[in-house]
Amino acid sequence: MPEKNSRILLGHGSGGKLTHELIDSLFVKHFNNPELDRQTDAALLEVPAHKIAFTTDAFVVDPIFFPGGDIGKLAVCGTVNDVAVSGATPLYLSAAFIIEEGFPLQDLKRIVISMAEEAKMAGVSIVTGDTKVVNKDKCDKVFITTTGIGTLVEKHYSISEGKQVRAGDKVIINGSIGDHGMAIMSARNELKLSAPLISDCASLNGLISEITGASEKVHFMRDATRGGLATVITELSTNKDYGINIYEERLLIDEGVRGMCELLGFDPMYVANEGKVVVVVADEDAEIVVKAMQKNKFGKDARIIGEVVTDHPGRAWLQTVIGGNRIIDMLAGEQLPRIC
Amino acid sequence: MPEKNSRILLGHGSGGKLTHELIDSLFVKHFNNPELDRQTDAALLEVPAHKIAFTTDAFVVDPIFFPGGDIGKLAVCGTVNDVAVSGATPLYLSAAFIIEEGFPLQDLKRIVISMAEEAKMAGVSIVTGDTKVVNKDKCDKVFITTTGIGTLVEKHYSISEGKQVRAGDKVIINGSIGDHGMAIMSARNELKLSAPLISDCASLNGLISEITGASEKVHFMRDATRGGLATVITELSTNKDYGINIYEERLLIDEGVRGMCELLGFDPMYVANEGKVVVVVADEDAEIVVKAMQKNKFGKDARIIGEVVTDHPGRAWLQTVIGGNRIIDMLAGEQLPRIC
Repeated sequence: MPEKNSRILLGHGSGGKLTHELIDSLFVKHFNNPELDRQTDAALLEVPAHKIAFTTDAFVVDPIFFPGGDIGKLAVCGTVNDVAVSGATPLYLSAAFIIEEGFPLQDLKRIVISMAEEAKMAGVSIVTGDTKVVNKDKCDKVFITTTGIGTLVEKHYSISEGKQVRAGDKVIINGSIGDHGMAIMSARNELKLSAPLISDCASLNGLISEITGASEKVHFMRDATRGGLATVITELSTNKDYGINIYEERLLIDEGVRGMCELLGFDPMYVANEGKVVVVVADEDAEIVVKAMQKNKFGKDARIIGEVVTDHPGRAWLQTVIGGNRIIDMLAGEQLPRIC
Repeated sequence: MPEKNSRILLGHGSGGKLTHELIDSLFVKHFNNPELDRQTDAALLEVPAHKIAFTTDAFVVDPIFFPGGDIGKLAVCGTVNDVAVSGATPLYLSAAFIIEEGFPLQDLKRIVISMAEEAKMAGVSIVTGDTKVVNKDKCDKVFITTTGIGTLVEKHYSISEGKQVRAGDKVIINGSIGDHGMAIMSARNELKLSAPLISDCASLNGLISEITGASEKVHFMRDATRGGLATVITELSTNKDYGINIYEERLLIDEGVRGMCELLGFDPMYVANEGKVVVVVADEDAEIVVKAMQKNKFGKDARIIGEVVTDHPGRAWLQTVIGGNRIIDMLAGEQLPRIC
């Protein structure tokens, strides 16, 4: 494949010769695993469990390259994390590409290599895929949909639903909030900042297995992506017989992120993260879990940020620094389109 | 959700309130299954097998509604068929939507209902999904990526690779070729034809389980989609120690499809199908399989169209009606962009 200055043609999505060349020279080469080598439509996979976790996400982030990652890394991390927070061990991913005619092959290669590296880091294989090309201006550069499969052990069946959550439990997060959203905004607007904002985009399955390894009393996990921490907390408390208090003074917010949020009028609680997991743990194990998280590079700043309470059931409250209470609700409209 | 004249807003992809309303009122309602009801990011699924088939496809067909189907039905059929031809029983699908801001909610509802109906027909559940909305003109109406999981029994492990294919085997197809591609072309160009061309878009897992039930000597199956019959036959013969002969006179081509192909300069062998499976069976079981197929509504016109030969190894030949031979090769460029 002649790469320099080469561009994606409609023929690369035809299913014919150009598609096969693209698959061989790019996807099979870099994703590099026996299932993909077979080049059949479906991957045939061993699943050493009776229960699997299955999740999908479409990624349309703009810009496709940003400080801390790119659409490919994001597509791997996002789906790995969705599998992991369900309590499962992520094993396999699929990747479907929708590419705009004329997209530089060099950029596609950079994205594919980034996906391959992140998949390797996360210990998952990208075992099947698809490529479609649409005419110029019928999509914006490239969209990637990843779907993930993980195996689940029985004791983790209820973690994703949070049915074990009860008053007294502590709410933990593995670090600062709002980094991804504000990194995208600053990249999109090409702002020249003294310290560039960097996305927290990361595969958290290693951290998460340390969390579930540290305590048998992990009652809930969810990654705080679109809609931010506020949306996770709202979902967790809505229609429940308990309430949640979040303590604003415990929230870690990067100074640059805070400044940009103020500039643009955003609340960091609602800004997307791509490397943050919210964990609810029984009170007695909370410190153990925080300590275990702090040993992982993606959990260095892990901290308790709130607790589950009997007051205001069905509602989440933010206890503000100045001593007031504010109801945490779901975002009504769209804050930041194409953030992931 | 106020439907009439309502349109998709960026907020429907925010992960916030509008996203939740859309998921509840549309996806959860119509796809209707306990896994989706849980509304966690990952579906937790029983898999009563040690081996699964896993496949993904992005659908970008234009127009999104066409005689015989729509992008939603196609997205279900296409992935069901990819799982089924691998010899697996399709069980679960995921569906990720990328929607253009301003897309009519009525159209989305029509697509979702169509997906739900086709999934029911095929006996699969749509258990997890994702919705992203991009700004107007950043995608074309709606793209859908479906990913499928099926369970596989050991005796079918080799069907998708075709390692058992040998000289003497017969090549079978379940009916006419080129219907889907030409239906899309006529719909796209709004041609007023005396008899409208209708896509063959169908879930073939029922037919396929009758095929594998009728014979233990099914050596290969593949659905003939993008790139058409010619691409399947070329892929099957390339780098093999056998050749394949296809007999042109055995190919069934609808008169309208033939006429349109002549008008537009297409070879029906390369035109996409969405309800056609190519089956290679040991000679002694070929008639048994054809008869079994003919009892299924999607196999009424099943027929032997060729055979595996020792001549011209690695090559597929078309034996033409006028008595000549023509090499069947893969499509070099793009014939029909956005056909699926």
